[in-house]
Amino acid sequence: MKFKLEARDNSARAGTLELNNNIILTPIFMPVGTQACIKGLDFNDLANIGAKIILANTYHLYLRPNDNVIKNMNGLHNFSGFKGSFLTDSGGFQAFSLGGKPNEDGISFKSHIDGSKHFFTPQKVLDIQYNLNSDIMMVLDDLVSLPNTRERIVESINRTTKWARESLIYHTNNKENHKNNNIFAIIQGGVDSEAREISAKSLVNLNHNGNSFDGFAIGGLAVGEEKNAMYDTIEFTTKFMPESKPRYLMGVGTPEDLIEGIYRGIDMFDCVMPTRNARNGTIFTSFGRLSIKNASLREDSAPLDSNCSCYTCKNFSRSYLNHLFRSNEITYMRLSSIHNLHYYLELVRGAREAIMQRKFESFRKEFYKKIS
Amino acid sequence: MKFKLEARDNSARAGTLELNNNIILTPIFMPVGTQACIKGLDFNDLANIGAKIILANTYHLYLRPNDNVIKNMNGLHNFSGFKGSFLTDSGGFQAFSLGGKPNEDGISFKSHIDGSKHFFTPQKVLDIQYNLNSDIMMVLDDLVSLPNTRERIVESINRTTKWARESLIYHTNNKENHKNNNIFAIIQGGVDSEAREISAKSLVNLNHNGNSFDGFAIGGLAVGEEKNAMYDTIEFTTKFMPESKPRYLMGVGTPEDLIEGIYRGIDMFDCVMPTRNARNGTIFTSFGRLSIKNASLREDSAPLDSNCSCYTCKNFSRSYLNHLFRSNEITYMRLSSIHNLHYYLELVRGAREAIMQRKFESFRKEFYKKIS
Repeated sequence: MKFKLEARDNSARAGTLELNNNIILTPIFMPVGTQACIKGLDFNDLANIGAKIILANTYHLYLRPNDNVIKNMNGLHNFSGFKGSFLTDSGGFQAFSLGGKPNEDGISFKSHIDGSKHFFTPQKVLDIQYNLNSDIMMVLDDLVSLPNTRERIVESINRTTKWARESLIYHTNNKENHKNNNIFAIIQGGVDSEAREISAKSLVNLNHNGNSFDGFAIGGLAVGEEKNAMYDTIEFTTKFMPESKPRYLMGVGTPEDLIEGIYRGIDMFDCVMPTRNARNGTIFTSFGRLSIKNASLREDSAPLDSNCSCYTCKNFSRSYLNHLFRSNEITYMRLSSIHNLHYYLELVRGAREAIMQRKFESFRKEFYKKIS
Repeated sequence: MKFKLEARDNSARAGTLELNNNIILTPIFMPVGTQACIKGLDFNDLANIGAKIILANTYHLYLRPNDNVIKNMNGLHNFSGFKGSFLTDSGGFQAFSLGGKPNEDGISFKSHIDGSKHFFTPQKVLDIQYNLNSDIMMVLDDLVSLPNTRERIVESINRTTKWARESLIYHTNNKENHKNNNIFAIIQGGVDSEAREISAKSLVNLNHNGNSFDGFAIGGLAVGEEKNAMYDTIEFTTKFMPESKPRYLMGVGTPEDLIEGIYRGIDMFDCVMPTRNARNGTIFTSFGRLSIKNASLREDSAPLDSNCSCYTCKNFSRSYLNHLFRSNEITYMRLSSIHNLHYYLELVRGAREAIMQRKFESFRKEFYKKIS
């Protein structure tokens, strides 16, 4: 993996991430395909909206179809047909959100499918991600809900660092056979600036036989804290993240969150929001959010967004999409998801362009003006 | 509308149906898009599988979004983006299957959406279909479940003829403004050969100011009767249907039913089976049915059908589709529906080719040999 910083505009960054012959321009948004599939879409839809990297979930794919199945099908790319890159999370977030129990060695959890018992260790989640042939593997981390006690937050960052160290050692020892599988660590610490600093510094300083992490993520945000606390946490955490490596803000967020994250130096984002909101009837447009349920759209022959060049806007009216939504047609889910993902990818493309021209501040102002 | 019989092979027919500059080769299968949308697909998917004519439901579109909405959006073609032809049913079947009450003047029913009360007359369903701008409109008919009493069957065919006469008069009087909206009558009579004969003859003989129906359908089959009774009914009903006009078997059926219908002189079919079965996990292939749930497909890198040239078979493995089905991904529904519809359309294309070469009998034998 090669990461090159092309431009800076105050804290905002534009870069180039080269992953196994796939060039990804940052800042980038990664659509979420939990089960190796973006809901409603296939790899051609992704190519058409210009998605170069997507996220898949280690926890879900381990349980079904199982990582050995995907290994035998030559990895996620061949399995799904998606020729871009895959980032896979570690399962830490699912363990957190689906009731898993962490201890010093790993996380025990029950399958949400059949109730069977499983135990994830830092090494095990890497083995799974080797089987998936992820381009970017995330280490197992221990995250906490917010607000939480200082004690629990300290335990979380210590455990996350311990697991990250074990992950780095394990990956260093296995690197020969897994040269194309890059590894990112995850900074924890809630919205506590001191804990974030400790977590970031200790992960950034980890080194085993000359090997360190390929990138760093900020985890444990968008889990119940105030928006401003999230933005502040991003701001004081990025200070301790190396300039030369990609910075990934996990599970975030709204279009506004992307703008604010980029403004504070984030390079990579993922979130279910564009696809989930599409399915639930919320459309993102250049002039703000549009509810597809709105009765005023029933006979509206305009596209969702007249400024949009996506497949859906080029071919379908608000009237037809309003009807498909009200009729619970799955075709609506595909078409609206294509639009919302295209919107997110256009947003980060626009942000990158602005950073390259050192005009991100006016881009950000214009963005808020248009959607207000 | 122009219908030209190109070839006959015993009772099987190959024809050309010209509808508002759209050329449809018969025998043809029409995918069902109840709500002006084939579940999971859009008009480009339909173009890619070669669908030239699809079915939409008068009852459903009248209730939602309402035919006036579609009229204001310039009809079904513009509303949905589908550039082929639309056949719309009359609502008679929905009235039958959703508990409507027929009397001499029409059918009263309650909306399945909000319980509101409605009344369909022969004239009203044509007005709705004018608003939809259907290429082929079906007249309101009174169909019966099977088995049923002789008395109810006689009532059904008499009422169906009365309504057909009213429909023909109404359409003749409105024809000037609706030149592109063709009209088909529906033969009823259960599996009673005498009733079918009476129904067919009286509808075929209807004439108002020199106008007769553009085509004839066999309705009221595949509603609980034995397969052989259905095939026999098709056989003795087609005898009384004019050679020079298209013959449409409504709501039928399996691939075997299509072969048997074509064998007995049917030109047009529609059925939810290819799409509904796809969604439920049954895949039609050149070697018979395949259950996508089958555990043996988990690591099967082959396409659904190696003989198939559809989008799904060219791009996706059984392994991935098995996983998407098990994960309840809507992408599976689209991909499997594309395959099954492509299979149905290839089947009728193959049948037509065989009829043109006067080899339908061997085509039929080969079909059964392959799937057994």
